[in-house]
Amino acid sequence: MPLRLSTSAVDFESRFAGLLAMKREVSEEVNDVVRAIGQDVAQRGDAALIEYTAKFDKLILTPATLRVTEGQIDAAVAACDRATLDALGLASDRIRAYHARQKPRDDRFTDALGVELGYRWTAIEAVGLYVPGGTAAYPSSVLMNAVPAKVAGCPRVVMVVPAPGGTLNPLVLAAARLAGVDEVYRVGGAQAVFALAHGTETIRPVAKIMGPGNAYVAAAKRQVFGRVGIDMIAGPSEVLVIADGTANPDWIAADLLAQAEHDTAAQSLLITDDQGLAEAVEAAVERQLATLPRAEIAGASWRDYGAIIEVGTIDEAVPLADRLAAEHLEIITADAEGLAARIRNAGAIFLGGHTPEAIGDYVGGSNHVLPTARSARFSSGLGVLDFMKRTSLLKCGPEQLRALGPAAIALGEAEGLAAHARSVSIRLNLGDSA
Amino acid sequence: MPLRLSTSAVDFESRFAGLLAMKREVSEEVNDVVRAIGQDVAQRGDAALIEYTAKFDKLILTPATLRVTEGQIDAAVAACDRATLDALGLASDRIRAYHARQKPRDDRFTDALGVELGYRWTAIEAVGLYVPGGTAAYPSSVLMNAVPAKVAGCPRVVMVVPAPGGTLNPLVLAAARLAGVDEVYRVGGAQAVFALAHGTETIRPVAKIMGPGNAYVAAAKRQVFGRVGIDMIAGPSEVLVIADGTANPDWIAADLLAQAEHDTAAQSLLITDDQGLAEAVEAAVERQLATLPRAEIAGASWRDYGAIIEVGTIDEAVPLADRLAAEHLEIITADAEGLAARIRNAGAIFLGGHTPEAIGDYVGGSNHVLPTARSARFSSGLGVLDFMKRTSLLKCGPEQLRALGPAAIALGEAEGLAAHARSVSIRLNLGDSA
Repeated sequence: MPLRLSTSAVDFESRFAGLLAMKREVSEEVNDVVRAIGQDVAQRGDAALIEYTAKFDKLILTPATLRVTEGQIDAAVAACDRATLDALGLASDRIRAYHARQKPRDDRFTDALGVELGYRWTAIEAVGLYVPGGTAAYPSSVLMNAVPAKVAGCPRVVMVVPAPGGTLNPLVLAAARLAGVDEVYRVGGAQAVFALAHGTETIRPVAKIMGPGNAYVAAAKRQVFGRVGIDMIAGPSEVLVIADGTANPDWIAADLLAQAEHDTAAQSLLITDDQGLAEAVEAAVERQLATLPRAEIAGASWRDYGAIIEVGTIDEAVPLADRLAAEHLEIITADAEGLAARIRNAGAIFLGGHTPEAIGDYVGGSNHVLPTARSARFSSGLGVLDFMKRTSLLKCGPEQLRALGPAAIALGEAEGLAAHARSVSIRLNLGDSA
Repeated sequence: MPLRLSTSAVDFESRFAGLLAMKREVSEEVNDVVRAIGQDVAQRGDAALIEYTAKFDKLILTPATLRVTEGQIDAAVAACDRATLDALGLASDRIRAYHARQKPRDDRFTDALGVELGYRWTAIEAVGLYVPGGTAAYPSSVLMNAVPAKVAGCPRVVMVVPAPGGTLNPLVLAAARLAGVDEVYRVGGAQAVFALAHGTETIRPVAKIMGPGNAYVAAAKRQVFGRVGIDMIAGPSEVLVIADGTANPDWIAADLLAQAEHDTAAQSLLITDDQGLAEAVEAAVERQLATLPRAEIAGASWRDYGAIIEVGTIDEAVPLADRLAAEHLEIITADAEGLAARIRNAGAIFLGGHTPEAIGDYVGGSNHVLPTARSARFSSGLGVLDFMKRTSLLKCGPEQLRALGPAAIALGEAEGLAAHARSVSIRLNLGDSA
């Protein structure tokens, strides 16, 4: 049974706070193991990478076979089902079009004093993309990471993907090809993250590492952070559906289960002002679970972390949604737009009954890498900006330095930084003679 | 003596690699101490915060005196030197004007299929700003953090600043007033970071914590990361000057020392194609050091981490600068703009001889919180975007779902996520009947 809460209950606030504080992740203590792998890969490069791959992936590689060749990618693409390839192509095109609009503009201007100011965006030179192997090898995730990287203009996008027993998902390679990934290596785990961060004889280092992975991969990313950039460490996925009596309970149930099938730690929540809908959704979830291939996972997620919250009026959903700060927020109400406009915290909002979250996962065009575990309060989904960085620009001539210099000297002196002050005054004393 | 390198030397590459790999930070192992403080503050709130403040800052507080009152800020402002206040006001106005141009635009569009897409930026609801006490209490840093937060539209900007023995820097309070900080608390250290992250009876929690601090503060920020957002963990400051024979060696020496006076671990580097300039700068540094109040700090920094790199042509500076990815890059050459355009990695670029980095520290308008330790390869200086987050928006009607649905179903099935596929197909089977 999922949790049932009602804002009209006297204990609502404490029960809702309990829901917010619910820990869905068991963080394995793998730091020491991972640290040893990191030191080894940093010191011995390819040799260490190859040894760990033999040990963990049961795959014997040589420096020459670390990289997946263009010919091997060609063969993988040729082996893919045509309809699925077309769907992947549609997804790729739509993701590219959506993200192209995110490309930031540079700024350059001259102020009233004649000071030239501005900033300039540049793409990160080399980014690494971690792609999990096995059952979690999602071609859609390859697109969601690699397409924005290429839209940003990253010259070198490097993908690592473990090939347990030698097997790679052809669709993952097809997605890499579609997205324009420059290099693919058949390695995974913490060792692949360290190879990207430190570089080996075969794999040149990158400046930032993106993409999801298991506890070992996440620990490795945390450990290399600083040496390279990393994206967020993603937690279990979640959806919040806000619905009123106009919504179709079967559709909502399907959406709650689509989230729940990801992971037993996923979370599916419904807020509604309609008690009849709440009951109909709960019944529909049970009915649909019966015929779901991943019923065991989805059922556990729904039982352990699912919740239905009844509110007196749909307006009461707004502050609750802001506190939950869901990764995915579906709004299926008479005035979905109006409600959405009042909500501050959400990774992505899906408006109306005909926008199931799965559209956003695949072919909507927006990014499906979104902030989890309430981090939408302070962070954003993946986008083009994550593959770029901004350099500020400042240029004074002699006149501008005369105008601004005295204030800089005053502040330098007030902060006890005499050399700061002198770096200005030495120029002012010399005037514009240089 | 600073390091002297020349690209013409046979061992240049290995010596330059050594410079890049140079570790300037000794990371103290304070994690366990800090973790205990965190648990205590999370559990006991104000009481713990007050106890740690008594212990570390020798200051006895009560819940009623944790907060610095408006009257106390008024009195501090009244006690400030007029000229310094004016300088701070100029800085504040210029920082506001520069950052106002960084405010991102929302996007909303309808594609050829009729799908409505877009994204929306919102300010983070509550941000905390850590301000160090004592000698490192820099009013300019208050402006650099708080002004962009207010430009972003954060409704609640909370500042914590330790008051050892009860003393607060009046200019820090004046800067808080100018920037529009909403609440100021006289607490610091790891305990203040945990108070911001968890909240106490007196201090409501924030969603993101910014600002520099000592090893304890940095460890606390790392520990609360995830529960709240944090900014970068700043390392020792650094400057790279690229100069040719047109540059004034005394000015360059002053700039190198302005960086070096921050910290014995600061780093000042010069790349030049002019051997005469290299020698003149080295001599000028020694001369200027003699009369510098912070000569001991600046001298140690210059001796231990400073370097002068001679290149055959100024073009050779470009790849070296990209590898160094300096926090501050001054370009003082005949064609500074042309050279700047070819450099990818730098936190901020200061163009021409009349733009000492200290102008950017105080009154240029651009932000002085910039990526250190080569992280300009993958990250940006502080800006308005750091105080906002993006929510993506997606809206399909029945027709759009019919157009996109089959591809989503194909990809859901290819990824083994049947409930994803069903959340689309259940709607298509029902058509637009709902």
